[in-house]
Amino acid sequence: MIRRLAIIGVGLIGGSLALALRRSGAVGEVVGCGRGVENLQRGVERGVLDRWETDPAAAVGGADLVAICVPLRAMRSVFGALDGALAEDAVVTDAGSVKGSVIADAEAVFGTLPPWFVPGHPIAGTEHSGVEAAFAELYDRRRVILTPTPANEAGPVDRVEALWQAAGAQVVRMDPDHHDEVLAATSHLPHALAYALVDALSGWDDRQEIFEFAAGGFRDFTRIASSDPAMWRDICTANRDHLVAALRRYQSDLGELTEALAAGDDGRVLEVFQNAQAERERFLRLLEGRA
Amino acid sequence: MIRRLAIIGVGLIGGSLALALRRSGAVGEVVGCGRGVENLQRGVERGVLDRWETDPAAAVGGADLVAICVPLRAMRSVFGALDGALAEDAVVTDAGSVKGSVIADAEAVFGTLPPWFVPGHPIAGTEHSGVEAAFAELYDRRRVILTPTPANEAGPVDRVEALWQAAGAQVVRMDPDHHDEVLAATSHLPHALAYALVDALSGWDDRQEIFEFAAGGFRDFTRIASSDPAMWRDICTANRDHLVAALRRYQSDLGELTEALAAGDDGRVLEVFQNAQAERERFLRLLEGRA
Repeated sequence: MIRRLAIIGVGLIGGSLALALRRSGAVGEVVGCGRGVENLQRGVERGVLDRWETDPAAAVGGADLVAICVPLRAMRSVFGALDGALAEDAVVTDAGSVKGSVIADAEAVFGTLPPWFVPGHPIAGTEHSGVEAAFAELYDRRRVILTPTPANEAGPVDRVEALWQAAGAQVVRMDPDHHDEVLAATSHLPHALAYALVDALSGWDDRQEIFEFAAGGFRDFTRIASSDPAMWRDICTANRDHLVAALRRYQSDLGELTEALAAGDDGRVLEVFQNAQAERERFLRLLEGRA
Repeated sequence: MIRRLAIIGVGLIGGSLALALRRSGAVGEVVGCGRGVENLQRGVERGVLDRWETDPAAAVGGADLVAICVPLRAMRSVFGALDGALAEDAVVTDAGSVKGSVIADAEAVFGTLPPWFVPGHPIAGTEHSGVEAAFAELYDRRRVILTPTPANEAGPVDRVEALWQAAGAQVVRMDPDHHDEVLAATSHLPHALAYALVDALSGWDDRQEIFEFAAGGFRDFTRIASSDPAMWRDICTANRDHLVAALRRYQSDLGELTEALAAGDDGRVLEVFQNAQAERERFLRLLEGRA
């Protein structure tokens, strides 16, 4: 049971966390914090928040759990604002998509890794944003990856795990750098590929016709290229090394397929397509098995 | 009004064409032809077909319109079976995803380009196949591209255009080679990229975790990698030159993005993402405007 939860950044991620915890009766009071007063007020109207503050230091006063759900680029300044304002027993977690950069931000601000900060990443989201988009079921059966630091003892990690479990999620623990490597492949690479494709096609001569004769497959394939560009610039640059490595590795594999096709090695082309289709069926069964 | 329509290959594409024409009262009799007797019988039960034949020559007897809706690899043998069996006034069209290869097949079989063959390509489909998946609305407001050959006079082209319009589609005409170039970018390239990604990831060390922590974005991005591998091997190899050119061009653009990211040129990364997002919104408005 959380006495008072402070949510810094009340959007889809933070707002849905509050709603999910209320649903399971796991939280007493929810205090929101953000820069958009209208959004915060809407959070109160929707029953997401009990009250709000625009100053993070004021918002976390007396809170035993603080969830930082802001874009990666705002992490460092939020950490700065929390310095000295946290309650004695407070545990802090975040929801950033890259863990190495958030941990580096915390270390830079506090001079050392704080034992009360447990980095986390819920693998969930929709294409919508803001507290208006929040809903209690967002985390149901979704994965949340916690990446404890060497400074974390069991207590704070267990409390953050309990938080996400109460929100309906399945929690796993992972080394931060390994998290960033896996997410580079699974999430950051596809985003970069989709952005690169739409950007590339927009520069081709037949651009108008290309988009005119694109159909459902293209719409699905490029859906993630409709994501917020600044947020994804942040994610991709925060995970630069792993993403560059993944991009280079993919380019090498793609180059091999291209040369097989160019050389008339149609058996190899079929092999790649067959393996991909079989692997994706495996992936779908994995998703279904979890649902 | 079509007196007798022969459909060679009664799957999603051919079956839906028959249903759409029946809906608008544009067809008298529909004769199906295929290798799977069970599928053909199901076509009769579903009201798609009036009757069926397993021999293409028998199926097209007395038909004034013949629609060849078979995989690309079967085109040449179907053309061979039609030689000498067509009615005097028959017009033949096809639904293949690549036009250059189909036209080459026709020329190889008939020795010259037949004036009665009008190549076409409906830009429509679902992930399902077989006559069971056919439905009358598949072509509503979808594009059908006709790629007349130098041998086509106005009459046959107009009749095929009327066929697709009666099925609910919007018909445009295009040079065959230009069709193949545009579709390489819009359809064949994304399929190759998605297959290549899933195949590549399946070979990486963290394969198990990669798929385990993939979410909705990855599922959408890779949906087209669940398509029939043999069918897509056919499409990609039939459109080899244009697809190889598109792959190489994309790799060059992707390489540029990778090097910008590696070099810390985050402004360039943002520029690519912003342009892609804006272009995709334009594309979505285009799709909506048509619906």
